[in-house]
This record gives sequence, C-alpha cells and structure tokens, in this order.
Amino acid sequence: MVDGGLSSEIKIIGIKGIPEVKPGDDLASLIIDGAQGQGIKIVDGDVLVVTHKIVSKAEGRLVDLKGMTPSKFASMISGEKDPRLVEVVLREAKRIVRMDRNIMIVETKHGFVCANAGVDRSNIGGEDMVSLLPIDPDRSARSIRAEIKKRAKVDVAVVISDTFGRPWREGQTNIAIGVAGLEPILDYRGRKDMHGYLLKVTSIAVADELASAAELVMGKTGMTPVAIIRGYRYVLGESSARALVRLGTKDLFR
Amino acid sequence: MVDGGLSSEIKIIGIKGIPEVKPGDDLASLIIDGAQGQGIKIVDGDVLVVTHKIVSKAEGRLVDLKGMTPSKFASMISGEKDPRLVEVVLREAKRIVRMDRNIMIVETKHGFVCANAGVDRSNIGGEDMVSLLPIDPDRSARSIRAEIKKRAKVDVAVVISDTFGRPWREGQTNIAIGVAGLEPILDYRGRKDMHGYLLKVTSIAVADELASAAELVMGKTGMTPVAIIRGYRYVLGESSARALVRLGTKDLFR
Repeated sequence: MVDGGLSSEIKIIGIKGIPEVKPGDDLASLIIDGAQGQGIKIVDGDVLVVTHKIVSKAEGRLVDLKGMTPSKFASMISGEKDPRLVEVVLREAKRIVRMDRNIMIVETKHGFVCANAGVDRSNIGGEDMVSLLPIDPDRSARSIRAEIKKRAKVDVAVVISDTFGRPWREGQTNIAIGVAGLEPILDYRGRKDMHGYLLKVTSIAVADELASAAELVMGKTGMTPVAIIRGYRYVLGESSARALVRLGTKDLFR
Repeated sequence: MVDGGLSSEIKIIGIKGIPEVKPGDDLASLIIDGAQGQGIKIVDGDVLVVTHKIVSKAEGRLVDLKGMTPSKFASMISGEKDPRLVEVVLREAKRIVRMDRNIMIVETKHGFVCANAGVDRSNIGGEDMVSLLPIDPDRSARSIRAEIKKRAKVDVAVVISDTFGRPWREGQTNIAIGVAGLEPILDYRGRKDMHGYLLKVTSIAVADELASAAELVMGKTGMTPVAIIRGYRYVLGESSARALVRLGTKDLFR
C-alpha cells in the first residue's frame, strides 16, 4: 500500500477527544485513546498529522513571560509587542529576516523561516505563557511513530505541522516541520506524462500538502490537534523535514 | 453544511475517467460523466478541484512553438532553453522576478509569481505544443460551477489548481489560481481559542490547502485531472483567487 502510487481516495479524520496536554504527557497514548474514543482504530499506512502545539506542550517547550527579562535590544525593537515575547523570539532565532509593523520574520535554529520564530500564545492557557517550537520536530515525530508502533502494533507515518505565512501569497497554510516514516518530497525526476513527455515538475512537497490537507479538519481553535490521513500511498523513507528547507544559494524565489 | 464550521471527516476522491480534453470541450459534462463512470454522484457542498491544464486545453490556451518567432531579447536570454518557449513566457509575463540557471521566475498578468509564467509542456501531447494559464481562472471556475449547477442541479465550489514552487522551501505544492463559490481565505480575526485567547492566526488560505489536498490524489501524470473534496464545510463567497495574491507593499516575507 505504501508504494508512492496514486491513491484514488483519501480520508481525513479529525481526532477531537484529546485532553489538554501537559509537560511529560505521552502523546502516542493520547492519540490512540482519542481515536478510539471516536471509534477509530489506527491502521498500517495511516499518516498522523499532529499540530506542533501539543508536541511542544508534551515536551515542556513552554515559557512563562513573567520570568523573562528582555535585553536592551529586545526592548528597543519591540514596538507595540511585549518586549518579553520579543526576547523569547530572539532566543529562538538564528537570524532576523525582516522586521516591520510589529511583525518579525526570522529564521529559526531549525532553518525554518516564519513569523516570531514559531513562538505563540494561542491554545496554551495562562496569560503570560507562550509555546516554542519543539527542539527537534523530526525526533518528536520519530518518537510518536515508534511509540504508536509499540502500543498499537501499526506502522504509521507522522507529520508535525505548524501554520506558516509565505511570500507572494496571502493567508497562511499548514506545513510540515517534522516527519517520520515517509519521504517528505515525492521525486518525479525521469517520470513521464501520459504522452511520454518528461515531466517539468520534479518534486512535490507531499509532507506540506499532507499538513495542509489535515488543516482542513484541524482548524485553529485547538479542539482538533490531530488528524488521520487514511489511504494516501506515501513513499517510505528516513528523510528529515529539513529536506523541505531550501538553502539560500538555491532559492531563486527569494 | 457550508457554514465554515469544522468538518470532522473529509474525503478526497480522484476522478480518473476524463478523456483527453480538446479546445472547445465542455468540462462540466466531462467531469460529471467522469465521476458517474466511477459510480460517484456529485452532491451539494462538494469542492471540485480541477487542474488548470484541462481548463487551458478546453479554452484553447495552447501554443504551437513551431509558429513562434523569438524576439532578440528572448533569444539572448534563453540560455539552454528553447528561445521560442522563452518568447511565450515573456508574452505571458508582466514582470521578470528572477532569472538564473535556466529558470525564469516571473509575475504573470494575473499577478501570480511562478516559474515560466505557468507555460508548460507536460500533459499536452504534440512535441512543440505548450499550454498557457487560463486568461481568467476565476471566470473559468465560475463557468464550470454554473454549468454543473445547470446540469447536475447541485451547488458545488470550484478550485482551479496549478503546481507552484515557493521561496524558502523545497518542493512544489498545488495552489489555487481560480475559485468560485467559496471564500479562498478563512478569516479567524476576532475568534478565540479554547482558553479564550484571541488567535494569532488571522487568515488561512483554505483554497490553497484544498488544492494541495487534492494533489495527493491527482498527482502529476495527468491521469487524474479532477478531485472531489467531500465533507469540507467551506464558507460561501464571491471572492476571487486574486485575494490570495499578496501585494508587494504588504509582503514582509519577500
């Protein structure tokens, strides 16, 4: 089933019954139980898309701004933002890509380019609490995958998602910041179309498309932190979501 | 059903039985028949994602390079590319964003930023034939929607998709270049999360996410030019896919 051939039908199922996640929680169990609570058994070949927010919570990647003293630089550039939040963003950033109108676009330590380094106040609770991105979202994905294999005896792929803005286009979309068990990029090099013409498209970022597809049931209110994508014939693989990060020297779009 | 609330389950069904499309063909009929051939009846609330390629073909947006004389500029900049193809790209472009290593990133007359202005050789047949993007993909989407309403007596939304590269990230994804019957951007402004915190995310480009989701069954070989997305509770609307184009002055990501 997982041979990278085209699926003729895919199902996307939102998993809603997951309780508020706390540091140290075992996500694999929560996901299995949440699915079971909806009468759904996770099966071989399912792709689990997990919002990074519950991963960050389970991994304790939370910061209380009350304990944060902003540097002089953070205070200077904060504008209308909370300088303590800006301090956290700076600590998570490798590079500031652009700053303006209270928006900071930065490159995170993982290499992702996004607003506020993924530091976020929503869906946490606690007035001054913010969440950070997982330190290594691929490792988080591998760990969830391994635990699900151990407990439910099924082989799944895991995608950790976040919601990013992008250049040229309005609106944000969900993308993959961590993957386990599937190749994030489907390589069409050398494949031909039905007329025998070599395809111009060489690579499709399927992990990002899976994350986007999952967003359609997950939404942004935090009630549906996990989606099961069933019937998608992914390519097994060991690549990291870093494969989705384009290096500056190769990026003509910037 | 189409109230923009969250769906708990979505189905994506690839429609495969559509014959080679020729200029003047009636796409609505081909889509209805193709679905019927798979035993699928299109129903109210379905989103039809249609690859622009068959829209371009039906609308006669095809050019035979044999009849194309490249300008001096096209010949000069063509490098390893076919100068006749470069000529077509220049005619479709409003602006060259970047040129290098045989890749041309341009802004099309619609305002889309993409490689080769969407001019493409694949899935057409005919050695020197290329396809252009539809002149007005929103109008194409509206026309398919109206015809499906007339013939099948159902209210659907239509998304015309293409495969674009993007800055910062590797791999291409499907995005929406035309929409009809749904709001392409879901606006979360003023909505709160489950803890009562005002959401940071203000707008999700659901039309792009629908196009990406559909790509998972459509692929790139041309055999599955249409997908039905069933169960997604979209917001009814009259906005154009131009709403997805970010103006330069607002774009901090560039």
